[in-house]
Amino acid sequence: MNTHPFDAEVVLSRIEVGEYRGKTSAHYANMVGPFGGFVSAIFMKAVLSDDRQTGTPVAVTVNFCGSIADGDFTIQYKLQRGGKYTQHWSLELTQENSVRATASIVCGTRGDVFEHQEARMPDVPPPEACELLPKGALLKWIDAFDLRFAKGYPSFVGKAFDEVKESQSIVWMRDNPPRPLDYLSLACLCDTFFLRPLQMRGTFPLMGTVSLTSHFHATPQELKSVGEDFVLGMVYCKRMNGQFNDQQMEVWSKDGTLLASGGQIAWYKD
Amino acid sequence: MNTHPFDAEVVLSRIEVGEYRGKTSAHYANMVGPFGGFVSAIFMKAVLSDDRQTGTPVAVTVNFCGSIADGDFTIQYKLQRGGKYTQHWSLELTQENSVRATASIVCGTRGDVFEHQEARMPDVPPPEACELLPKGALLKWIDAFDLRFAKGYPSFVGKAFDEVKESQSIVWMRDNPPRPLDYLSLACLCDTFFLRPLQMRGTFPLMGTVSLTSHFHATPQELKSVGEDFVLGMVYCKRMNGQFNDQQMEVWSKDGTLLASGGQIAWYKD
Repeated sequence: MNTHPFDAEVVLSRIEVGEYRGKTSAHYANMVGPFGGFVSAIFMKAVLSDDRQTGTPVAVTVNFCGSIADGDFTIQYKLQRGGKYTQHWSLELTQENSVRATASIVCGTRGDVFEHQEARMPDVPPPEACELLPKGALLKWIDAFDLRFAKGYPSFVGKAFDEVKESQSIVWMRDNPPRPLDYLSLACLCDTFFLRPLQMRGTFPLMGTVSLTSHFHATPQELKSVGEDFVLGMVYCKRMNGQFNDQQMEVWSKDGTLLASGGQIAWYKD
Repeated sequence: MNTHPFDAEVVLSRIEVGEYRGKTSAHYANMVGPFGGFVSAIFMKAVLSDDRQTGTPVAVTVNFCGSIADGDFTIQYKLQRGGKYTQHWSLELTQENSVRATASIVCGTRGDVFEHQEARMPDVPPPEACELLPKGALLKWIDAFDLRFAKGYPSFVGKAFDEVKESQSIVWMRDNPPRPLDYLSLACLCDTFFLRPLQMRGTFPLMGTVSLTSHFHATPQELKSVGEDFVLGMVYCKRMNGQFNDQQMEVWSKDGTLLASGGQIAWYKD
């Protein structure tokens, strides 16, 4: 049986309740250490592997405190509070006794009540009509996804330019090879958007995500309906100044359902 | 000397490094316990009162784990990691040895580098031309602010209605009485937006913020320029379903500078 690379790499071994051991993955390697989506997924994996976990993920915030080296790491976490409707988890990723990342994850018990979606999916051509980002040319983790740009094809692939370009990119995305979407891979996908200074300036300054928040709107049924199909990602930046920039993101199913939304603050050098 | 209510109420006494004692405030009382903005500000106060704090706040996530009772509480926190550019803090608010709220706060050292603001402030009439929310009619904490609605005047003040209304509200806001804006009061202001089920349905279901993330773009100079003047808040909801809804927010200075942005996930009963 072939295990999908995501399932083979996003793994933890339990030391005791509240403590896991894991290791970084060459498959999801960034310039230095693992790409942020891998870290998000690892934190999510810890919570979803705990026998006390109830409901489905509704919010995750990951804070990238220090660089994560390739190799082993420890996840320590606690269930801060569990109630009828929500469950709150706090987590830390450490290497050599220093904290490299922290996270809070909220799970929620969903009920069948009033619902309404005001946001509308961007109107773009289907994946087949959009340009596929070539494999093997960039960072390792990028090859773990099929990314087809409907708008805002990354400028670092082409020539650099002097003007500030519009920050928005819209991109069809899925795992490569395809894998059925679940909360674990959704947590990962929420951080596949390239940092916006790249898009806006066409340059490659030193930069990195500082704090990433993803909110999950998707129900298990909605994820199941997506299956291995592409989802549509949208990202843009409101403001970059004084070495920090935000970027806002949305993830949509093809049928126009908002699966996730969120934002991050990233640091850039110059 | 008259101390502003905000400065008189958002106070902590140090027990030791990493532990403070505080109490809830009648001035910032919600239906049950303190309003979320007070909790955000108290967490921020803890960090800003620590001798090790450097830089300025760039991100705060507050998770509301359980109801906070009126009365005393303890804040325990640690500096997870401090580097050249960022500082990461984790905090917990406890009452009777149970965690009622957690937070992560990131401070950043800002440098004078490339900057660009893509987002544009909503074009609305000035505060003087907008309807002031009356005092004394609603929850106690609301009276701690002057709120002048340019769009989306809260429907629970008027009649209820059956249709789903557009979720966006745009509101001029400042402390009442006026107080010079700083990171502490900005953290508080970021949670003054009424929960969107109110706006969209005109009904008042049981509801509450679950996880609130605010990103601060403002520099100290930009906050100083605002002084005691109104800032413009904008809020809307992308999707509400299965008992959870997001709401997105922005806070602007009058001159069109984006001071803060962020989002929250809230729970609603039906």
